[in-house]
Amino acid sequence: MNLLEALNWRYATKKMSGAAVPQEKIDQITEAARLAPTSSGLQPFRVIVVSNPELKEKIKPIAYGQTQITDASQLLIFAAWDKYTEERIRSVFSHANTERGMPDVAPSDYEVQLTGGLLSKTAEENFAHATRQAYIGFGMAIAQAALLNVDATPMEGFNNAQLDELLGLKERGLRSVTILALGQRAESGDWLVNLKKVRTPADQFLIHFN
Amino acid sequence: MNLLEALNWRYATKKMSGAAVPQEKIDQITEAARLAPTSSGLQPFRVIVVSNPELKEKIKPIAYGQTQITDASQLLIFAAWDKYTEERIRSVFSHANTERGMPDVAPSDYEVQLTGGLLSKTAEENFAHATRQAYIGFGMAIAQAALLNVDATPMEGFNNAQLDELLGLKERGLRSVTILALGQRAESGDWLVNLKKVRTPADQFLIHFN
Repeated sequence: MNLLEALNWRYATKKMSGAAVPQEKIDQITEAARLAPTSSGLQPFRVIVVSNPELKEKIKPIAYGQTQITDASQLLIFAAWDKYTEERIRSVFSHANTERGMPDVAPSDYEVQLTGGLLSKTAEENFAHATRQAYIGFGMAIAQAALLNVDATPMEGFNNAQLDELLGLKERGLRSVTILALGQRAESGDWLVNLKKVRTPADQFLIHFN
Repeated sequence: MNLLEALNWRYATKKMSGAAVPQEKIDQITEAARLAPTSSGLQPFRVIVVSNPELKEKIKPIAYGQTQITDASQLLIFAAWDKYTEERIRSVFSHANTERGMPDVAPSDYEVQLTGGLLSKTAEENFAHATRQAYIGFGMAIAQAALLNVDATPMEGFNNAQLDELLGLKERGLRSVTILALGQRAESGDWLVNLKKVRTPADQFLIHFN
């Protein structure tokens, strides 16, 4: 199945069966998110993998009772850095330099300029930028799940502050931004599964300058 | 090539050759963006496809002289809705109802609630939300390009307001958010091509609640 076939196959699963997704597929889905490109390679987000049933039960009311939360095999919670800091940026560049066998004695001009630019903005602006990067990874995870025929529900409908509190994300310098529930569609009870996939027609979605 | 192989193959191409990418591949890349899931299916963004050489020359200084702008075969400019409006939301739901053979006499309770929620927020908050959706499509386009072995450079480094002005996006209710330059890597002159791809190690990138 190629990506376009996979994207046509997938849909925002409304009713999951509770069946487990093989760990090997979960690993490939999180790996796609990890490999996603981000601005200056900063990867300013983390993916929280929740398989614990009791924890899913606690998350359910925070997500307004949506049943996929507990019927999913795993929840991937995408959480962005709450702000950029010199230490965080340094850590990324230092790691890259080491991995590439390059000297890491002082920040490069590029790193200095990048750091200055990011730190001149507010924490809220930083978080908005980091969130956009998280959404690239979110897209990659959705693509990989579809290619593996793993059902998935992208979910923005939850109380972010309550989820952050429950998972102790503030202490990690993270804020939750979106959830991808991974599982298997139920045999019945999904109102969306048989409805036609609808998208904005290409002649309206695309604007050409030839 | 599967998606993980493709994501390991790709890199943010720094020097492109100027070679043309076959239209069939461009179509598959924009189609992946069009099929990307978005919040409530609103697809609050558009993709502007620029192949015109003179226009690329005009965009180059707006992107601080980055050579991929003119050496790319096509630029995909992702532009998000500047705000949500009742008319825009109605149009999406009306189209979906028609495509699904369902009556479209009045907005559903879901649509009314969604519209109320989105319109209770500021235009800037709406734009931030729409931008995040655009980044899901951006991720899908990057994935599809990699799967087709089309080189691509994700680019946030440009003056958004100037690009909006040049392309007349304000009149369309759009604001540019990111660019994907599509082309072919040059034989030489790319400082990044031979450097090891580095990502945050999985044991730091993932946080498990088992």
